[in-house]
Amino acid sequence: MAKAAIVMGSKSDFPVVKPAVEVLKKFGVETEVRVISAHRTPEEAHEFSATARERGLEVIICAAGKAAHLGGVIAAGTTLPVIGLPVKTDMMGGLDSLLSIVQMPSGIPVATVGVNGGENAGLLALQILGVKYPEIAEKLSVYKADMRKKINSDDALLQSELEQL
Amino acid sequence: MAKAAIVMGSKSDFPVVKPAVEVLKKFGVETEVRVISAHRTPEEAHEFSATARERGLEVIICAAGKAAHLGGVIAAGTTLPVIGLPVKTDMMGGLDSLLSIVQMPSGIPVATVGVNGGENAGLLALQILGVKYPEIAEKLSVYKADMRKKINSDDALLQSELEQL
Amino acid sequence: MAKAAIVMGSKSDFPVVKPAVEVLKKFGVETEVRVISAHRTPEEAHEFSATARERGLEVIICAAGKAAHLGGVIAAGTTLPVIGLPVKTDMMGGLDSLLSIVQMPSGIPVATVGVNGGENAGLLALQILGVKYPEIAEKLSVYKADMRKKINSDDALLQSELEQL
Amino acid sequence: MAKAAIVMGSKSDFPVVKPAVEVLKKFGVETEVRVISAHRTPEEAHEFSATARERGLEVIICAAGKAAHLGGVIAAGTTLPVIGLPVKTDMMGGLDSLLSIVQMPSGIPVATVGVNGGENAGLLALQILGVKYPEIAEKLSVYKADMRKKINSDDALLQSELEQL
Amino acid sequence: MAKAAIVMGSKSDFPVVKPAVEVLKKFGVETEVRVISAHRTPEEAHEFSATARERGLEVIICAAGKAAHLGGVIAAGTTLPVIGLPVKTDMMGGLDSLLSIVQMPSGIPVATVGVNGGENAGLLALQILGVKYPEIAEKLSVYKADMRKKINSDDALLQSELEQL
Amino acid sequence: MAKAAIVMGSKSDFPVVKPAVEVLKKFGVETEVRVISAHRTPEEAHEFSATARERGLEVIICAAGKAAHLGGVIAAGTTLPVIGLPVKTDMMGGLDSLLSIVQMPSGIPVATVGVNGGENAGLLALQILGVKYPEIAEKLSVYKADMRKKINSDDALLQSELEQL
Amino acid sequence: MAKAAIVMGSKSDFPVVKPAVEVLKKFGVETEVRVISAHRTPEEAHEFSATARERGLEVIICAAGKAAHLGGVIAAGTTLPVIGLPVKTDMMGGLDSLLSIVQMPSGIPVATVGVNGGENAGLLALQILGVKYPEIAEKLSVYKADMRKKINSDDALLQSELEQL
Amino acid sequence: MAKAAIVMGSKSDFPVVKPAVEVLKKFGVETEVRVISAHRTPEEAHEFSATARERGLEVIICAAGKAAHLGGVIAAGTTLPVIGLPVKTDMMGGLDSLLSIVQMPSGIPVATVGVNGGENAGLLALQILGVKYPEIAEKLSVYKADMRKKINSDDALLQSELEQL
Repeated sequence: MAKAAIVMGSKSDFPVVKPAVEVLKKFGVETEVRVISAHRTPEEAHEFSATARERGLEVIICAAGKAAHLGGVIAAGTTLPVIGLPVKTDMMGGLDSLLSIVQMPSGIPVATVGVNGGENAGLLALQILGVKYPEIAEKLSVYKADMRKKINSDDALLQSELEQL
Repeated sequence: MAKAAIVMGSKSDFPVVKPAVEVLKKFGVETEVRVISAHRTPEEAHEFSATARERGLEVIICAAGKAAHLGGVIAAGTTLPVIGLPVKTDMMGGLDSLLSIVQMPSGIPVATVGVNGGENAGLLALQILGVKYPEIAEKLSVYKADMRKKINSDDALLQSELEQL
Repeated sequence: MAKAAIVMGSKSDFPVVKPAVEVLKKFGVETEVRVISAHRTPEEAHEFSATARERGLEVIICAAGKAAHLGGVIAAGTTLPVIGLPVKTDMMGGLDSLLSIVQMPSGIPVATVGVNGGENAGLLALQILGVKYPEIAEKLSVYKADMRKKINSDDALLQSELEQL
Repeated sequence: MAKAAIVMGSKSDFPVVKPAVEVLKKFGVETEVRVISAHRTPEEAHEFSATARERGLEVIICAAGKAAHLGGVIAAGTTLPVIGLPVKTDMMGGLDSLLSIVQMPSGIPVATVGVNGGENAGLLALQILGVKYPEIAEKLSVYKADMRKKINSDDALLQSELEQL
Repeated sequence: MAKAAIVMGSKSDFPVVKPAVEVLKKFGVETEVRVISAHRTPEEAHEFSATARERGLEVIICAAGKAAHLGGVIAAGTTLPVIGLPVKTDMMGGLDSLLSIVQMPSGIPVATVGVNGGENAGLLALQILGVKYPEIAEKLSVYKADMRKKINSDDALLQSELEQL
Repeated sequence: MAKAAIVMGSKSDFPVVKPAVEVLKKFGVETEVRVISAHRTPEEAHEFSATARERGLEVIICAAGKAAHLGGVIAAGTTLPVIGLPVKTDMMGGLDSLLSIVQMPSGIPVATVGVNGGENAGLLALQILGVKYPEIAEKLSVYKADMRKKINSDDALLQSELEQL
Repeated sequence: MAKAAIVMGSKSDFPVVKPAVEVLKKFGVETEVRVISAHRTPEEAHEFSATARERGLEVIICAAGKAAHLGGVIAAGTTLPVIGLPVKTDMMGGLDSLLSIVQMPSGIPVATVGVNGGENAGLLALQILGVKYPEIAEKLSVYKADMRKKINSDDALLQSELEQL
Repeated sequence: MAKAAIVMGSKSDFPVVKPAVEVLKKFGVETEVRVISAHRTPEEAHEFSATARERGLEVIICAAGKAAHLGGVIAAGTTLPVIGLPVKTDMMGGLDSLLSIVQMPSGIPVATVGVNGGENAGLLALQILGVKYPEIAEKLSVYKADMRKKINSDDALLQSELEQL
């Protein structure tokens, strides 16, 4: 069974992380959810990262804001794919978080999604797991089809609303 | 055998893409390399994306600059993981490329690496493939160890250089 | 009779689009208003764009936010003028939307208006239609004269308010 | 016969404007090319704008850099569509020019293309003229097809180059 | 007697302009306050600027937001000093207004103050008038001394508040 | 006779300042040119500022880069108008210099011109002096007329060049 | 006994400064807290800075916003370490304050912490004092251990909350 | 005797670091200079940080570029003051490096200097050491006086150069 982890730098980041937790759960992926700070609990971060593969993890999502080092610190200690989820801040809408996560030096990539993109972090994790697990890939196709239907029905709804204007 | 694709929006982006091509080759991953433009060849982009999985691709890297839609357009048509590689421009060092790639709407993630981060795009593709292919994961550990050795030997070299000052 | 379309990437963008709908309506332009997502409904976007001219459309407004690819994707499939309307986001007030729309590669322009500039998107569509339809151009002159009168009367109003201070 | 104008704020902007001149010429559009400064020759700007329609112009391209007011100043005096072409500067790669052109107040749109996007300014003018002149629209379809062929041949070329590596 | 003008691009900018009106009034400077839009009332702007010196004006404050051309347009038509007051917008806190005002081309300066810096626009006008009118310069010295006293008394107040903590 | 000062934070800023020196000289204004650093020679800055008015100065230009405090520090010590000239840096083309100069707190304005806008700093000084000295205002009118002629002749030159293409 | 000072440019900055005051108090450091403005009370700033060392101060925190010169002005007059605390503004979330503080010219460093980082300013002051005072360094170790425990307990709390979902 | 360390994330950062090495040497501070990467050699970083105080270090300078985590990672493991030195990149002149270093979360400050501010990083280290070592503080006073003399002699030199113009 597929196995993922979601780590946040502060418990206050949970609302941003929640859509990732939910979509992974919905797809039946076993998911560890942790609060580990790159700066306040560096040993825990190191330990988590160093043992991630042997504990069966296959992909890790790291959410953090401001000088957001969590993704980079976790990626430094493992060869698993690490997804970086920048948390919105007051500094230009989270540009600090985004640049601190995405601009990694050669050798240690972090797969970055948009600011506060919790659902996308979860979906990217599922796409990565879907390379190995065909059933996840199939569910993603259904998910994609559902999104399409949602837009189509929004479009239909708009037409009827416009007629009434 | 693992199979990846690297797509660039313009042939002039090849120097940015080259380190990705090389690292995938070095790891023995069969890699398609294509020039497809989201805007100038939308049918080719659609075709490429829609048939990607059935042709055996497992991960796709998309490099583009400015209003860099290639990653998003490819991701729209497949459930494979898509890696976005922003190409440096004159607009604040590629901030336009970066934001056009990373700030995807909910539902369609693009796994973004840093501006001109060709090697990291390749390594991220390998980490994703490594979830399924243990031999790739093992080679990544060796790669990581080599990077560490390189830094260690740079450190040693610096010490001897400093002594001579 | 002149014919325009307004497409938005998400139904939630309607408030931004509304002033464009209203001004086109006010000028008597027949206007399709649609919800089509470049990423969630790429086939619909392709279909819309490929058939736009034959269905009699003469100008298209595309509103989208964040990695706002809708304008570019529609422009890729037609030679009609496409107007891009960036939707405000939290990322520096919509700079992500703006750059994703305006910084198009050579060959595929998108006529971009300011962030949340719904009325201007509509007026630009009317100016474009006015090249062909003299009656629209004439109405635009009246509209311009009315704006001038409004500023003049605001100026007069201010004078009387200041006297009372 | 279709008639356009291209105005630049300084003669030194000509290299940025040149691709627009060339593409309009290539399509057989009669084109005035002028140096008029919003700030140094305001009367000429006013005169140009006020008489543009009666002189038979149908679309106007305005290129300027830094506090780039030319497009706005010309748009203030006419109901013709005005295309703004921001010229690259040292200030964040032309962000000053871009924002000064695109962020127009409600009522006076300027159809903005990307920084230094001379060819796109010309093509957008042609798309606008194409609404009225079917022969221009047809030539644009050919232009689009040629771009597609160019990308396809670049793609083929890359394949043969890669084989030789 | 010293004579100044304050022009705003939209009546809705009055709250930003008000501190300038007040400080000029407080110093006894006769002040015209006008709503004139560079884009919606270009003739009025031209007329205002061209006759400014002959009507006895000695300094002009121009407040505008977004693609804020008012200061530049007024400065184009006069050799009087023109002060630009950028109005805060959603685009990075008014960076669009600021750059559109301050980045003027060689030959036509606009003396720019900070975003929403109404009081400073008024004080700068007074400093400029103070070059000619010694009584204004003297009043400015008193104003400066009062500011100093205010900070000193804030400092004293803080000490007593801290003691009570 | 009119009297101005130009102060730069570092002798290496002289090339940016030179056009201001030249235009003031050309207009016959007696001009002190000084190297004074807000941070390295704070006593000299204080002394310069405190005695500026009594030494007959009527306007002061301050050029500085990065955390450019010189204008603010000089303005703190005098009620003369102080013009801030931001020097271009590597940080986003001088945005650091610009914001450090223009975003002054209420009470202490600095009249800011564009980045590296040496000529404009000089012209603004002349416009300020022109409020008091009619002969300077007259010369500014000539200067303005000459700029207009230069643009007109550039326009004429372009026409003849285009004919030869 | 260790001795620090905290200076703010305006009494309204106190909420940003308060966490610094509190953490210094908690560690038993004698702390002067002052309102001194670089621009409105330059003499007080000069006096404060020039006498800082002789009055026994060992580290100084300076909080200011916008064109935030306070840190630089204080640093100009002393060789004590000066910590700059940028106050959040509307301009891109305080980027103006940050750049005005951190981008100091060679020779006069200001030790800058993050925007609104009051607690970090206090902790940095304590780390600096800890170089001399071992008891402060020891307390910092306890503080660090407490932060770690807090994260660990947040992590435990999250686990139990997730179980109940 | 005072003891400092300078760590850089990559040997290629040495030119940025060199002025810091030189000024510390000039002041007679024993200085370790190391290449340690937060991402490629996380164990070495951890080891360095955890043993820093016991090995007698009193202040640490960390230079890094892009997603510059080195300062934060070192600061996480010690209570010594850590100085962050952002290395210039192509992304807006090093704004990525700056924000990744300065925007640290509460609890773990990094004392940040300007982009490429090697000399200032060294001087800040000396100011910090000067709190404990009076002889360093004294040398800093001499250094400051020398800077002042340098500016004064530049000013004198400029006067003679201007006379010859």
